[in-house]
Amino acid sequence: MLETTIAAIGPLDEPAMAAARDLQARLTKPAGSLGALEELSVRLAGLAGACPPPLPEPAAVAIFAGDHGVHAQGVTPWPQEVTAQMIANFLAGGAVVNAFARQAGASVTVVDVGVATPLPVDPDATDETAIGPRLVAANVRRGTRDLTVTAALTRDEARAALETGIRIAGDLVDAGAGILLTGDMGIGNTTPAAALIAALTGTDPAEATGRGTGVDDETYRRKVGVVRTALDRHRPDPADPLGVLAAVGGLEHAALAGLILGAAARRVPVLLDGVIAASAALVAAALAPDAVGAMVAGHRSAEPGATVALRHLGLDPLIDLGLRLGEGTGALLALPVVTGAVRVLHEVATFDSAGVSEK
Amino acid sequence: MLETTIAAIGPLDEPAMAAARDLQARLTKPAGSLGALEELSVRLAGLAGACPPPLPEPAAVAIFAGDHGVHAQGVTPWPQEVTAQMIANFLAGGAVVNAFARQAGASVTVVDVGVATPLPVDPDATDETAIGPRLVAANVRRGTRDLTVTAALTRDEARAALETGIRIAGDLVDAGAGILLTGDMGIGNTTPAAALIAALTGTDPAEATGRGTGVDDETYRRKVGVVRTALDRHRPDPADPLGVLAAVGGLEHAALAGLILGAAARRVPVLLDGVIAASAALVAAALAPDAVGAMVAGHRSAEPGATVALRHLGLDPLIDLGLRLGEGTGALLALPVVTGAVRVLHEVATFDSAGVSEK
Repeated sequence: MLETTIAAIGPLDEPAMAAARDLQARLTKPAGSLGALEELSVRLAGLAGACPPPLPEPAAVAIFAGDHGVHAQGVTPWPQEVTAQMIANFLAGGAVVNAFARQAGASVTVVDVGVATPLPVDPDATDETAIGPRLVAANVRRGTRDLTVTAALTRDEARAALETGIRIAGDLVDAGAGILLTGDMGIGNTTPAAALIAALTGTDPAEATGRGTGVDDETYRRKVGVVRTALDRHRPDPADPLGVLAAVGGLEHAALAGLILGAAARRVPVLLDGVIAASAALVAAALAPDAVGAMVAGHRSAEPGATVALRHLGLDPLIDLGLRLGEGTGALLALPVVTGAVRVLHEVATFDSAGVSEK
Repeated sequence: MLETTIAAIGPLDEPAMAAARDLQARLTKPAGSLGALEELSVRLAGLAGACPPPLPEPAAVAIFAGDHGVHAQGVTPWPQEVTAQMIANFLAGGAVVNAFARQAGASVTVVDVGVATPLPVDPDATDETAIGPRLVAANVRRGTRDLTVTAALTRDEARAALETGIRIAGDLVDAGAGILLTGDMGIGNTTPAAALIAALTGTDPAEATGRGTGVDDETYRRKVGVVRTALDRHRPDPADPLGVLAAVGGLEHAALAGLILGAAARRVPVLLDGVIAASAALVAAALAPDAVGAMVAGHRSAEPGATVALRHLGLDPLIDLGLRLGEGTGALLALPVVTGAVRVLHEVATFDSAGVSEK
């Protein structure tokens, strides 16, 4: 499934992009006055192969949840159980991602791709006919291994998580989603994200590693050391993205890379959230360079690794508000900007049609 | 009316702000992880005097339109008739502001506070019961005088436009608006905006003046010279904001300053669009310093004067996408961020209520 998905990913459609540029120039506004929204609308036309591209509606957030063996190294003050507890919070609708999803009219799908502890979840919550967030059980293993000691995942485990992401993307697009938003939950998951970013961009661990939930100086130094140890131990080869993912990644990172590939293969835009998504986007781009055409960077996370990754991908984020929550929250805040960029091509009058004089 | 409005504007409510900070710390997310949204929610609690503050719904955009005698100096390549033509476009729903307002569920009110040319508008469009944008006829004069030759407005004209803005704010709040968004239309109106910003912040005209709709180098040099000439001629006194407005302002700038004051007096937030709004916000803050508490900077316009003005006001914009369209478009793109910031205080579970462990 991974290989056929990668094979289905192609470049942006140039005639559709040219048509979008031409239409932007005829709309009742000074040329270029919508700034970054104009180029975004052009890219989305290229992705859809049509001008105007379809409105990115409805939106679907996929939150992939996993745990991390590296938690044992003290890279975060939060107990590992919080991953499972937050899944219960997502399913009850009480997290920030739920509030933002309700506001944006987006669905929320929570995927257990690698949670270590039992899920404190009512089985009824998995009823896919119920209103509200649904849970997909797709646990590949109960958390990764400690990447300072051994490879976090086997190649088969990494592939299984990737293919879970591809499958979720396909399911959501089949159900009608016009845009996919990345979400994640996993106590400790900014450590493998930093390792992935350092490995795939050649950046020093000190530049790729951030404070995650806001760790203190001592924990931060330990975290940078952990990332350095992992890279020294595994020496992951950026030309082998699946190997990098297995050595220093996480199950939610792998599944998110799959979601991105799946969206790109279906030519549906995927709106990236924060540093976990950015690290997964690097994996996806390493596997299929044209997948970048489907990516929209939702926001600039406060995590420095996100900026390193987005720069490597050539993506400019839409929002920059110092968020570092994850869950998909930054992507959801950016969604109206994406929708607005496309809506302009659908709804705004031209100088001709509106009888407005040109300069 | 101006004096009673100014007298009604008070400081933010400290107990409500403290309650919002306390609530933010108990919600199921790492402290500070919502970045700028957290402080925004605290300010809006202080404005409302309640925690949580009401959701900023429904939203109302007020587009004030005016023309400018300085158009005769060749500061823009667009014909003056475009102001009136764009009003027709707003009322027909064909402009970018309409597309964004439909997306955001915001109403649009267009106010002719100083258009010079006849409005090519069907009288039925002024039917206030009609669905869609409505037009308010409140023309103070048919465009300002040329500020390089004489004062743009008399003090009485400037006051009349200010009071129009105050009245519109009151009408919109009385009709239920939970947030007001600034909009503007006026060919040539970035020139008086630059003059207001230079006069009220002490910034050199070369730093306060931008390229507006995207003028060429020659027109830009002429425009900076026009702003410098106006300031040299009138030497406006920043301690006399009404005098500054009369000397170098515009009717839509004055009305927007009134809208901001009216919103602040009613303790309803006002979401600022671009450089025209920023220049009006300087006038409002000079008249009533506490009015800044009601202001939220929607976006960072590509116009350099907007950044000068926002820095002077101590406001950080929510969105920075290189927009320079005006109409209220940047404010509308930022609206979901404001709503989201408040929604978090209403809807997100606490660690206690959700049974999530703390670090």
